[in-house]
Amino acid sequence: MVAPLKLGIAGLGTVGAELVRLIEQRGRSLSTRCGRGVRVAAVTARSRTKKRGLDLNGVGWAKNPLALASDPGIDCFVELMGGSGEPALSAIEAALKSGKSVVTANKALIAKHGLRLANLAEKHGGALNFEAAVGAAIPVVKTLREGLAGTDVNRVYGILNGTCNYILSRMEQEGLSFAECLKDAQRLGYAEANPSFDVDGHDTAQKLAILASLAFGTKVAQSAVYVEGISSIAPEDLRAAEQLGYRVKLLGVAVRTAKGIEQRVHPTMVPKSSSIAQVMGVTNAVTIDGEGLTPITLVGPGAGGAATASAVLADIADVARGIRAKPFGRPVAKLRAIQKAPMERHEGGYYIRLMARDLAGTAAAIATRLAEQRISIESIVQRHANGVDASAVNGKPSPVPVILITYATSEDAVYRALHAVQRDKVISGRPQVIRIEKN
Amino acid sequence: MVAPLKLGIAGLGTVGAELVRLIEQRGRSLSTRCGRGVRVAAVTARSRTKKRGLDLNGVGWAKNPLALASDPGIDCFVELMGGSGEPALSAIEAALKSGKSVVTANKALIAKHGLRLANLAEKHGGALNFEAAVGAAIPVVKTLREGLAGTDVNRVYGILNGTCNYILSRMEQEGLSFAECLKDAQRLGYAEANPSFDVDGHDTAQKLAILASLAFGTKVAQSAVYVEGISSIAPEDLRAAEQLGYRVKLLGVAVRTAKGIEQRVHPTMVPKSSSIAQVMGVTNAVTIDGEGLTPITLVGPGAGGAATASAVLADIADVARGIRAKPFGRPVAKLRAIQKAPMERHEGGYYIRLMARDLAGTAAAIATRLAEQRISIESIVQRHANGVDASAVNGKPSPVPVILITYATSEDAVYRALHAVQRDKVISGRPQVIRIEKN
Repeated sequence: MVAPLKLGIAGLGTVGAELVRLIEQRGRSLSTRCGRGVRVAAVTARSRTKKRGLDLNGVGWAKNPLALASDPGIDCFVELMGGSGEPALSAIEAALKSGKSVVTANKALIAKHGLRLANLAEKHGGALNFEAAVGAAIPVVKTLREGLAGTDVNRVYGILNGTCNYILSRMEQEGLSFAECLKDAQRLGYAEANPSFDVDGHDTAQKLAILASLAFGTKVAQSAVYVEGISSIAPEDLRAAEQLGYRVKLLGVAVRTAKGIEQRVHPTMVPKSSSIAQVMGVTNAVTIDGEGLTPITLVGPGAGGAATASAVLADIADVARGIRAKPFGRPVAKLRAIQKAPMERHEGGYYIRLMARDLAGTAAAIATRLAEQRISIESIVQRHANGVDASAVNGKPSPVPVILITYATSEDAVYRALHAVQRDKVISGRPQVIRIEKN
Repeated sequence: MVAPLKLGIAGLGTVGAELVRLIEQRGRSLSTRCGRGVRVAAVTARSRTKKRGLDLNGVGWAKNPLALASDPGIDCFVELMGGSGEPALSAIEAALKSGKSVVTANKALIAKHGLRLANLAEKHGGALNFEAAVGAAIPVVKTLREGLAGTDVNRVYGILNGTCNYILSRMEQEGLSFAECLKDAQRLGYAEANPSFDVDGHDTAQKLAILASLAFGTKVAQSAVYVEGISSIAPEDLRAAEQLGYRVKLLGVAVRTAKGIEQRVHPTMVPKSSSIAQVMGVTNAVTIDGEGLTPITLVGPGAGGAATASAVLADIADVARGIRAKPFGRPVAKLRAIQKAPMERHEGGYYIRLMARDLAGTAAAIATRLAEQRISIESIVQRHANGVDASAVNGKPSPVPVILITYATSEDAVYRALHAVQRDKVISGRPQVIRIEKN
């Protein structure tokens, strides 16, 4: 039997502690699978004295991550500290440079420095595995890196942030506002005290950049991702979506177009019948369109200690049994620079909600402006708010919502038309625009 | 650059021909991924002269599968002939014995001879990959074999036969009978002229046996699978399911219980809100419950030339870049004999539809018989068929349906209760029983 794989784990937070427990519980099953044992040789964390309920007897303690990564007594450095920079970056570099393998759950670091690290891994022969960085226990990294090698991926999109999906699900199911649901999510521990990273779409953008690289063989380019969050979504948008046969999800979408690769994160209307529309609460999901195939969708727990630790352990098992694929599926030298498709040239259907100042003639005025931009309207609905006669409040007409669904058109045509509508002064406030993604 | 991987392909039907085309189209992308080319070196098929629209210039022709498998000019034998025995079996054995790798889409062969073949692969160092054998393009074999190495699987279940799911979906959506939908499925090419293998559940059973082995580290045991098909399902069952918040799917379920491993294929009521319930038409889906994790579901095209060929090619890519996992995730010597949980001891909820001879007292009589077996009833509904007064037809009472949902109980308790009900002569005909699977 081969010598056991000796791990050095940096970071003993929720995920790190869960990982140590999992390895203890599953030791025999793991060594059966891998043909060798997996052993925690040394660890490091900010506090050595904190109570974690772990038996670390016989496990070394490194004074810092860099020292752990450089320890000749470990074969595989497991980075669970997080953060897009130090001390994770230097520690991982040191591990890779000494020919060790690295397993990390750090999406921010992989999105920012993934190429440089993949290059080091290739050069020195170690693995660089990061299944847990995207979709936690959903095996989407492995699926794109290895499992779908037999097809050309045309599009990959998904619900990559549980916080946002939890908020949108509750808003839809209970008719609550964004602010109310956010507060609840914070109370339940689904959202951070500073929720911007999640609700403004940045977390999704980091994960999407990683998926796009794996899907298309392009260099990770987080800066090329267009990002829009969910804070502008109102309960009336979710109600309208429901009536029109859609649901609103925060999607990360990477798609091959004639103009290059679009990477975008934004609230999106998806047909209620699609697999992705069924995904409610903190669950994540990714859909992959392969050339000539009906879509493949992976659904599962996208966050949490147990889900993340299990993905980290699967990556460790691959290291132990010698499974090596290039970190981004292709050699770094063969990854192409991403040709960014400009967002204003994005083509698709749009949901538009406007507050019309007056009923008479407004729909016609709006329709005219859309027609000028050659935008075809699939449906247009004017509503009396709550059954109150629109012109009866305070003696002057109060605004009523007008909701439009367009056929596929370009983003700049939509914004040109809406600017014209605003200049016409037939609407009040800012138009709400939500892109539609067809399955 | 390493020498290209030389393939010998046996079988040039829909999948084989599609594979040859895919390799031609995706040659460059594949060699980028794998660090070496992938080349079709030789082929064999029943007819050499049949028009296939393939350019086989420069490709060798072997006189039969065994000759191809033994050809020293190939590195990897790709078996796409099908059938649980010869000539596929001997050819694969010959390939493995000479140290070649084997890729196959043959579920029947893997379900029957998988262990023996895996043993040969291990002994001689070749790969034995069969992603396409279950769920075609859905990467479920790789996910169980490698991707979920970090978790203990407690249950795996899924829609593994597109024909059955197509029939049940249409029955539900259009209120048609099984016979009508089967005829349509045959007309559209979704069902064979002899549909028994699909609609009686045998296809699902073969795939389930493979998944169970991968999930639990047990020896493939197709004979330990309990099998029931969908031909007894009536439109009224689907209507009742809809009203009760369920859908009916033909599921293959493998689950770890205190009594051993249950492997069963049968029509199943699944909660309408579950991921698996959303899967309509010919699409397949597999849900995997990992210890301490919310379920992971993979959805996608489970059949068809393009989907199958893409899975075969992904397996070939793994061979080319040297990714080797044990065929069933663990060494054959470590696979445990399956301890079969007897079906009569299965525990779960049940849907029961009876035709009551008379309204008055029947529900009470049935409830009493269930109570004798300590079965708790979640709901019981008696219906007047089509609004006609039950007692008005021909002067004597005509039977009306009574529909019951039970809480979790054991299979033998249900059957003991139903035999007692039949002896009471308060019902006519055979009771319909459908198991409920909770998510």
